[in-house]
Amino acid sequence: MSQVPVEVSARHCHLTAKDINKLFGKGYKLKILKMVSQPGQWASKEEIKIKGPKGELALRIVGPVRSKTQVELSVTECYRLGIKPVLRVSGDHHGTPSAVLIGPKGRVTIKQGVMVAQRHVHLAPSEAKQLKVKPGQFVSVKVKGPRALTFSQVIIRSGEGHKKSFQIDTDEGNACGWTPGMKGELLK
Amino acid sequence: MSQVPVEVSARHCHLTAKDINKLFGKGYKLKILKMVSQPGQWASKEEIKIKGPKGELALRIVGPVRSKTQVELSVTECYRLGIKPVLRVSGDHHGTPSAVLIGPKGRVTIKQGVMVAQRHVHLAPSEAKQLKVKPGQFVSVKVKGPRALTFSQVIIRSGEGHKKSFQIDTDEGNACGWTPGMKGELLK
Repeated sequence: MSQVPVEVSARHCHLTAKDINKLFGKGYKLKILKMVSQPGQWASKEEIKIKGPKGELALRIVGPVRSKTQVELSVTECYRLGIKPVLRVSGDHHGTPSAVLIGPKGRVTIKQGVMVAQRHVHLAPSEAKQLKVKPGQFVSVKVKGPRALTFSQVIIRSGEGHKKSFQIDTDEGNACGWTPGMKGELLK
Repeated sequence: MSQVPVEVSARHCHLTAKDINKLFGKGYKLKILKMVSQPGQWASKEEIKIKGPKGELALRIVGPVRSKTQVELSVTECYRLGIKPVLRVSGDHHGTPSAVLIGPKGRVTIKQGVMVAQRHVHLAPSEAKQLKVKPGQFVSVKVKGPRALTFSQVIIRSGEGHKKSFQIDTDEGNACGWTPGMKGELLK
């Protein structure tokens, strides 16, 4: 049996250096609040806001700096903001909606990059080898409990800087009755 | 293959006659906005509010009058209101949280009855017979699409006044990429 830790990825964004300068002031360095499961990645102490046609929500930043600014929301949050929910694998901004990001020192209008992240399993290369799966492959993950679910359409993401973790959004976490420490069974 | 229509049940409440009197004034009759899938049941034109420690949300009423007042929320909505999410089969109020309901003419504090409804399939007695399932039995329902899922822990509810429908909440609907007209496959 191939167990994977199940993690709920709450709404967050990744920012370019250029957008950090606009939102926080030129040369601003984000402060690390805590490291997250993927090696070298962290949640910042700072928050920004995302504004859509129907409302605003606070948004945590996940660093380090990226080459493209990206916002990851749940479908529920998209509806709350009035933004069309578009499901994408992280990094694929094709056809994704725009939004306004608001920082303490300025605003940025991103033309695209707001997405609902496709459920995925991060694996280090050695972990992918052990589980006999490859990047881009689709698998399923079964979780137990009073809201037991089997998630299909789970994409494998693997490479240096990845570590075993099944990542779902807050809607998916609530739908499966997620609790801290939850494990899932990877099924091919 | 046993196909069932998949319906998302957005947050709503059922009210006693006593609570309608308190919220809307003595002898008030709710007006029908539209009939819902279960025979004889309807959503009202009127809305009330539910208030929890962290906020308020508008709440649609589903009639007719019930013997117990009950509020059905998603886990996301429970967190938004600051109410502990407790999973229950409709009608089972044991250990469920309290809340304040606010109508145009008054307030009601319900001591219990706020729940996250357990995913369930409604079936008319003839439909249950045809599918060879019994009330209280647990089944699974598989849905297809970009967020394909297999829901386990789906309880069968059957009797007069029931009609074939797999009912999930908004978190579950968003997690499975629900679209209008979606069907699921009932698996035993």
